[in-house]
Formats: sequence, structure tokens, C-alpha cells
Amino acid sequence: MTKIITYDSTLRDGEQSEGVSLSLEDKLRIAWRLDEFGIDIIEGGFPGSNPKDIAFFRELREHPLKHARIAAFGSTCKKGVLAADDPGLVSLIDSGAPIVAIVGKTWDAQVERALLTSLDENLRMISDSIAFLKEHDLEVVFDAEHFFDGYRANPDYALACVCAAAQAGADSIDLCDTNGGSLPHQIEEAILAVKAAIADAPNTRIGIHCHNDSGCAVANTLAAVRAGATQVQGTINGYGERVGNADLLTVIADLELKLGFECVGTDKLSQLTSVATYVAEICNFSVWTHSPYVGASAFAHKGGLHASAIARFPGAYNHIDPDMVGNGDRMLVSELAGKASLVSKAASLGFDLGGDDEKVQRILDQVKEREARGYSYEVADGSLALLIARSIGEYEPYFTLESFRVIVDDREDTGALAADAQSEATIKIHVPGTMNQPHGQHAIGKEVIELDLPVDRRFVATGEGTGPVGALDNALRMALREFYPQVDDMELIDFKVRLIDESTGTGAITRVFITTRDDTGVWGTIGVSENIIEASWNALVESIEYGLMRIGA
Amino acid sequence: MTKIITYDSTLRDGEQSEGVSLSLEDKLRIAWRLDEFGIDIIEGGFPGSNPKDIAFFRELREHPLKHARIAAFGSTCKKGVLAADDPGLVSLIDSGAPIVAIVGKTWDAQVERALLTSLDENLRMISDSIAFLKEHDLEVVFDAEHFFDGYRANPDYALACVCAAAQAGADSIDLCDTNGGSLPHQIEEAILAVKAAIADAPNTRIGIHCHNDSGCAVANTLAAVRAGATQVQGTINGYGERVGNADLLTVIADLELKLGFECVGTDKLSQLTSVATYVAEICNFSVWTHSPYVGASAFAHKGGLHASAIARFPGAYNHIDPDMVGNGDRMLVSELAGKASLVSKAASLGFDLGGDDEKVQRILDQVKEREARGYSYEVADGSLALLIARSIGEYEPYFTLESFRVIVDDREDTGALAADAQSEATIKIHVPGTMNQPHGQHAIGKEVIELDLPVDRRFVATGEGTGPVGALDNALRMALREFYPQVDDMELIDFKVRLIDESTGTGAITRVFITTRDDTGVWGTIGVSENIIEASWNALVESIEYGLMRIGA
Repeated sequence: MTKIITYDSTLRDGEQSEGVSLSLEDKLRIAWRLDEFGIDIIEGGFPGSNPKDIAFFRELREHPLKHARIAAFGSTCKKGVLAADDPGLVSLIDSGAPIVAIVGKTWDAQVERALLTSLDENLRMISDSIAFLKEHDLEVVFDAEHFFDGYRANPDYALACVCAAAQAGADSIDLCDTNGGSLPHQIEEAILAVKAAIADAPNTRIGIHCHNDSGCAVANTLAAVRAGATQVQGTINGYGERVGNADLLTVIADLELKLGFECVGTDKLSQLTSVATYVAEICNFSVWTHSPYVGASAFAHKGGLHASAIARFPGAYNHIDPDMVGNGDRMLVSELAGKASLVSKAASLGFDLGGDDEKVQRILDQVKEREARGYSYEVADGSLALLIARSIGEYEPYFTLESFRVIVDDREDTGALAADAQSEATIKIHVPGTMNQPHGQHAIGKEVIELDLPVDRRFVATGEGTGPVGALDNALRMALREFYPQVDDMELIDFKVRLIDESTGTGAITRVFITTRDDTGVWGTIGVSENIIEASWNALVESIEYGLMRIGA
Repeated sequence: MTKIITYDSTLRDGEQSEGVSLSLEDKLRIAWRLDEFGIDIIEGGFPGSNPKDIAFFRELREHPLKHARIAAFGSTCKKGVLAADDPGLVSLIDSGAPIVAIVGKTWDAQVERALLTSLDENLRMISDSIAFLKEHDLEVVFDAEHFFDGYRANPDYALACVCAAAQAGADSIDLCDTNGGSLPHQIEEAILAVKAAIADAPNTRIGIHCHNDSGCAVANTLAAVRAGATQVQGTINGYGERVGNADLLTVIADLELKLGFECVGTDKLSQLTSVATYVAEICNFSVWTHSPYVGASAFAHKGGLHASAIARFPGAYNHIDPDMVGNGDRMLVSELAGKASLVSKAASLGFDLGGDDEKVQRILDQVKEREARGYSYEVADGSLALLIARSIGEYEPYFTLESFRVIVDDREDTGALAADAQSEATIKIHVPGTMNQPHGQHAIGKEVIELDLPVDRRFVATGEGTGPVGALDNALRMALREFYPQVDDMELIDFKVRLIDESTGTGAITRVFITTRDDTGVWGTIGVSENIIEASWNALVESIEYGLMRIGA
């Protein structure tokens, strides 16, 4: 099986993505995780540019990774400057990274109009820089910027640049579709031309670096490999500037499962979904639901007959076995037609319903009854788990509501835009006592009376917020914090509202989805009511309840 | 320039996407917008399956589109049933759609293991169904399910199926990569084989229908066209089951701008971003920031790339000119991206801005400034009209707000489902007096003092509702009814809420869209605030204000 070298640029090109900002610790955690996953080369950043990246390279020099090797990123020497005198190149050597990647220009127009130098001087800069780095026994990757635009505009000059790099001793020439505008057949043609042009440098490999501006980054990368590239660059989850880079995880899965190449090996491939989630969390994103292979919806089926049909002929519904990439087959509960799919869904949530037909039917009836009222459990695993727990008698309430009141006050001119409305929520809840508590207590406000009996504790709390739901959230956490300090680890990360029966305007049913996260994962809950505040409250309460249940509080 | 027929399946396959649920009105609005954009065929749904789709086909039968033709979707006759006796096929004919698309099997294993019939009977079902539909003078699209899996497993049988379809008279044979697992080179090979196999049916065209499970849906579609397909299926923004379908907008842009084919024409191509946004809004999503061509980040450059550098050599930074797809200015991702389009949009709303450049610039600046704060005018014509009217001094307020207060009270057990929360809203507004009124009046509560001067009238009203927005709506109508009885003709028909910056949970910006209808038409308004109640109030106020303005009240 031909080995393809995987080259991750999440810590360099990925950090160019809007909204991504990584600390030193973040970068190290990602590097360690990618090392464990079996990535071959991890591009760490610009050692010449900032203290964070300098510290990153120092840390990894002192504590090397197990499998992966680190690459430092920079560019060829400046025009009119000898490589040996270029501070940027010197800092690459000083980084101690065993691999250096330097970007250089290969598009004639860019040399003349952006770099403002001659085509010959650019060739000199490429050769001189690579030769200088090779003298220091480094592995050198030459990133050929705008190569495919350059090849389309002036193939002779573009090929002259990569030949100069090969002759100077570059270990890998990585052809970059910098603007992301190329299509697979163009990539294939150019790679074949490069392969022929550097045929006299058999130790120089060809790499590929794609962006997704035409929606073809993954296909372009695959086309390059099929044409002879043996090194693939990309980023986890496709993070990167503009629309992003080639998603290295999709590329790896396609190469291993569809084209018979070896990247990380099929054993480690089952970490694919977990790597996607891990890196996303560090970047403070969720994995996009619709990501190939690793998204929550990647193997989810809506629509009636599927459950039993999948069992009969899995190939008719999924292009691969989801287990191979560590992603479960997930039935969308809202379209549940049969008991089999409920049993398997329940199992994925930790409930063993197997065998008890009556129990399963009871849950199914409740799901159906609720769906008729506007509930939808597609993305509300937390609420479904609570429904199942209640139905099979495994549910003990963590607290019960006595009442809440929300007040929103505003004073303004019509059309004013400032968010100057005030929101305030007052809630009264009871936390049940149990014999296992050190002491039963009875609290009214802040007056606490110690008792020897397991009795309820009552909490009254008032929260403020920019909006009514934020005020309710604050009040609820305030009330629960003393008894369940774990609520402080839970973070509400998404809040979606939708009217279901839109034909009746504001009197319609409101459906609220809340997504919550703690250190152990992410879950969704749902609330449904004619009143948006009440729907929000119900989703909020379940988000906390399920959060407590899943950690066994 | 070779014409490629565009076939949109957003209303059928797109609705299979998790979280997408479209009302009849939603489906009609999407169809109208796609018609204006120049899509050739719009697949409307299953006329046999549900009242919503039946109503959709009836509506479009009675009010045909300008350019696009409608397709009804179904499947071949059942095994052992003659086409003429198959209720599904009959309902396709009854739908009145000029085009019918029927899905049939072409993968031997699926015929035998899932359909549980013989390979010959499947061929009979294909032929018989198509011949029956052709007898009724319909244009027939044969969707060859799992064609590429079938072709890899048993090329002879897969080709026998498409030959049967061609011989029975299918106008288009659309090869489906149902599981989305194929790669571009596989698609190309199979299309070439089909082309050869049906060479004796020159009036049968080849179409392509891809899913994105390998991350290659767009590239697969392009590969099919390069190999000879002339009809491309896809969905707006790639909505669809699992990871989604081929994004038809990316496909169209690639075909037009990269491969020289004609889909909607370069003039209409500038609507690309606006179509993406419009459909997303109706589906209650945002356009994914990193979508090719239409995403907010698609042409955004992080950190200090200066406009002057881009101006010197734009090709070094963007693969295409963003204006070509209507995604010009970063801050203004809407159909209002230039002065010309604003002037024409304003004209459609009844404002003549022609010639006054300064006026146009002032409005553009305001739109831009508001969009930066989360506003979006794509589906908020009413709010845009009010903004223009204010900006050019043609706005006279119908009323002004002194204050509002909303109270929501609830008393229940946690998890209770009944909507027993009480909502109450009290508003205090002023209606300005004018000399044209029969009598100036001054009202405090219900005490009215007749005056001879044009002074404000003050109204205090309290409304109740099942939710806070309904309560505000009721209070506002109650206060205005006496002065503007026309408010009783206005009906709030849709209310959509979305958080814009979801990373910050309940503290995020809330965007509310309201759709209102009266005898004269339908209009949309928008409100934006950190407080959901305030955002709702602003959208509500504008819905009434614009409703009064458009009838010249």
C-alpha cells in the first residue's frame, strides 16, 4: 500500500481562519493530539514572527513528539539579499525544527507586479534559500505559491521555479492552489507536468496544498495524489482563510477508504471523529454538523423505513461503515418508525431497553405524542434521555419549580436601536432532600434550618440579563450553584428559536433548542410552548438536568 | 456557449436536511425566488404524499412561474403492478406538473436484497413506468438511484437499466450518487460508459445528482458535465440528508466562471449571494460563513491585507471578482451591494432615487452600518422601505413609544408541558396630531379633551397573550385601532428568531423577522437587539408602520 505523507497546517494556515485564535497551550494540545493520531508532519507556525511560536518550537525541541515531525514556516530570502544574510531564514534554523517549509513565488505576474523584481532574481531567491537550508541538514519543503495560476499563465516559468527548487535539493515541492480557484482536471494536468519536469530529481517528492474557494479542495487534493503527489497538506476541519483549506480529515478518509493509500492506518482512522471534535473544541467551535465522515449528521437518516432496511443492506444507506471513522450511525428520532431504531438510539444514550417490548412501546408512544405537539428530538439528545429516564422510572428530579416571573421594561422612542431594555427573572425552586445527604436542610431565602430529616430545600433567586432567557439562566444557576456546583462547568453555547405552526403568527407554537457544553461533551435540549419564555425555560431546565444526569450528580 | 440545465431539489431533497422544515408559503417563496434567479427546473416535492405538497402543485398550476418549470417527484411503479394501476404514478400525472422525476433502482444487489424482486422485473418497472408517463405527454426524468455503486458492482446491469429508461423515452437520465461515496474519476468513467450505451437515443440527455459524503459533491458534478452530462441537480446551500447534496450555487458559479458553460447567465449570476441568503433565511439558517462564493468569509482576508495590495494585483488574493457573484463588499453581503442595485431595489419599493448620488450613498452607508450590527434586509423589504423613507426625509412617524413593560408569570412543576404561563404587556404610545385631523385631541387614558390644536394623543393599552410577543402585538393593535383602523386588516403570519453570534449563548444578538399580510400583499420586517423582546418589538412596530405607509394611511 503506497504511503502518503500527511502534513497538517492547522497551527499555521488554520489559524488564519476567522474566529480562530490559539494560545501556546492550545497549539501544544493540538500538536499532541495530532501526534497521537499519526499525522506525519505538523507545521507549527512562524518561528521568526512572535514569542508564542518561538515558545512552541522550544517546547517541542525539549519534549519531542512520538511520531510526528515539526515544520517551521517562513519564506525565501528577500530580493537582493543572500540567503545566509536573511534573518527570516536564520530564525527558521534557530527554531530547531527538523523540517522547514519556505514559500516562494512561481507566477510570473506576481513576481513582477507584487514582488516587484525580475523573474531571474526570483529563481535565484528560490535556489539560494533552499541550498542554504540544506547546508544546515534540514529537510526542506518548498511551498510553490500560486503554482496553478502560474502554470496556467506561464507554464515554462512556473516549471522553471520548481526545477530550481528540485536542483537546489528541496525534499518536497508542495504545489499551492493559493487562491483556491482550481478544478481537479487542472490540478491533475499540472502535477503530471511537474512530475515530468523534475524526473531527474528522484528524491524530491511532490506535495499538494489546496484551498476550497471553488468547493473542490478535497477533490483537488485527491486528483494530485492520483497524478503522483505523495504529500498532502490540509487542516483539521478545513479551518483556514476565506472559505478554508482542504479538510485533512476528509482527505485522509478518502485516501484510505476509497483509494487504497495509507495515511494514518485503518486502526487510527477510527479516531477521525474524535480528532475533529477535539480540535474544534480547542478552537471554540462545534464540528460542523454536515462535515463528511465526522459531522453529527454524516450518517443520520431522516425518512421512514430506514432502520430495519439499514440492517438488511447497510451499503444502500451509508457509503462506509461509520464505525471505521469513529462516528455512530445516528437515527433522527423525529422520524422514528420502528422499535429497533429507538432501542439503538437509547443504547447510544446509555439505556439498555433490549428485550422489554412494553417499555419500548411506552417510550415510543410518548415520543410520538410529543412530536405531534411540536417536539423534535433530532438534535435534542439530552431531552430524549430525560424522556426515556422518566418513562422507565430512572429519573429523580434534581429540582422542581414553584414559580417564575420575568419582567422586561423598555422606555424609548419607536425605532430606537440601543438594547436598553431591562430584563429581570425571579425563580422559586425546590431541591429535594435525600437520606444520603449529610443533613436534611430547610432553607427559606438564606435562612437555613438544620434538620435531621430529608426535606426539600427552597431557593429564591433573582437574575438579570440582557434578555429574558439570559435572566432566567442566571437566576437558575444562582439558585442551583450551592447545591450543584457542577452547573458552573456547563456553558450554554447555542440557542435557537423557531415557530412551528407559522400560519397563526405570534400565537403559534414556539420550539426552542439549547445546546450546552461541559468538559465531557455537548448536548441538546428542547422546549415547546405557545409562550417563548416558557419554551426557553423548559429547554434551559432540561439542559441543566441532563448535564447533571450525564455526570451522575 | 453550451447550456447546462439547472435542476433544483431544495424543496424535495433539501427538505431532508436535519432542521429544515418548510411550510407551504416557504416553499412557494423559494420557488418564486429561484424562478427569478433563472433556475430551469424546480423539483417541488411528492404530490402523492401530503396535503402541503398537493397544495404547492395546485398553486403553481394556477399561477405558473415565469421561467422555471416544476417537477413532481415519485418512483417507478411497485413490483408486480402495472404502471397504469400504480396510484403513485397516477398522482404524479394528477399534480399537473409538466415534468415528472421518478426514481428507480439500478444496483443489482439493491434490487435483490432491498426491493426483493428479480433483475428483470426491475427493468420492466422502469420501462413500463416511463412509457406510461410519456403516453401522458409529460417530460420524464429518470433518477437512477445508486447508479455509481451499481456500475462498480455490475456495470452490465446498471447500463441495462439506463438503456431501458432511454428506450422507454426518458427525456433525461439523472445518475444519482445516492450514498455520496463516489470520487470524480469514478463519476467520469461511468458517465462516459452511459453516454456510449445510450448513443442511439440522441434525445435523451444525461443528468447528475450528487451527495457530499466524500467531500466531492461539487467536483463530482463538474466531472460529470465535463464527461457529457447536460443537466445538474443540486440544492441551494447544499441542504440535504446526511452531509447534504451538491451545492447548486457553487456548481453554477464553477460552471459559468471556470468552465465556460451557461447556466443562469452572467447577469443573473450576480444574484448568487442574495439567493443563498434568501433561501437560508426562509430555512431559518444563516449562510455558512465559509461557503464558497456566497459565504461572508469567502472573500475576506484576515489581518491587514490592504486594499491597495488587492487593487495592485487582485488575482493574487481572490480567485474571482466578488462582484460577479454579488459578494462584493465584506460589510455588505446583500443584494444591495452597489448603488445601481439599491436604486432599482428602492424603485421596486416606490422610491425614485435616480440621479441623486449623495442620497443613495447616505442610504448605503446606513444599510452598511446596520448590517454590521446584525441587520439583514434580504427578506425585510418593509424595514428597508422605512429606512429609505427616513433617510430621504419622507418618513412621518405614525406613533412613538413612551415605554413598554412585559411580564411573564409561570407556576408549575419542572418539566410540565402545559402552556399555562401568563403574558401581559403594557405599552404607552403617542400618536402625533396634524392640522388635517378633524379635531386635535388630547387623550389621557379614556378621558378625551377636544382641542383646536394639533397635539399628540397618548394611548395606554394592556394586552394579554399566550406569549410576550403576542401580548405586545395585542396591546399595540388595541392602542392604534381607534386612530388607524387599518391595523385590523394586517395579520402577522410568520415570526422567526435567530441568534447571530451564537458563541456567546443567551448574551448574543437576536435577530427577529416578522412577515405580515394584508389584502394588498405580504411584507417582511426585522428587529435586532441583545434582548429578544426588544428585537421582537422593533420588528412588530415596523410591520405596522410599513403596513400603514404602503396603503398611504
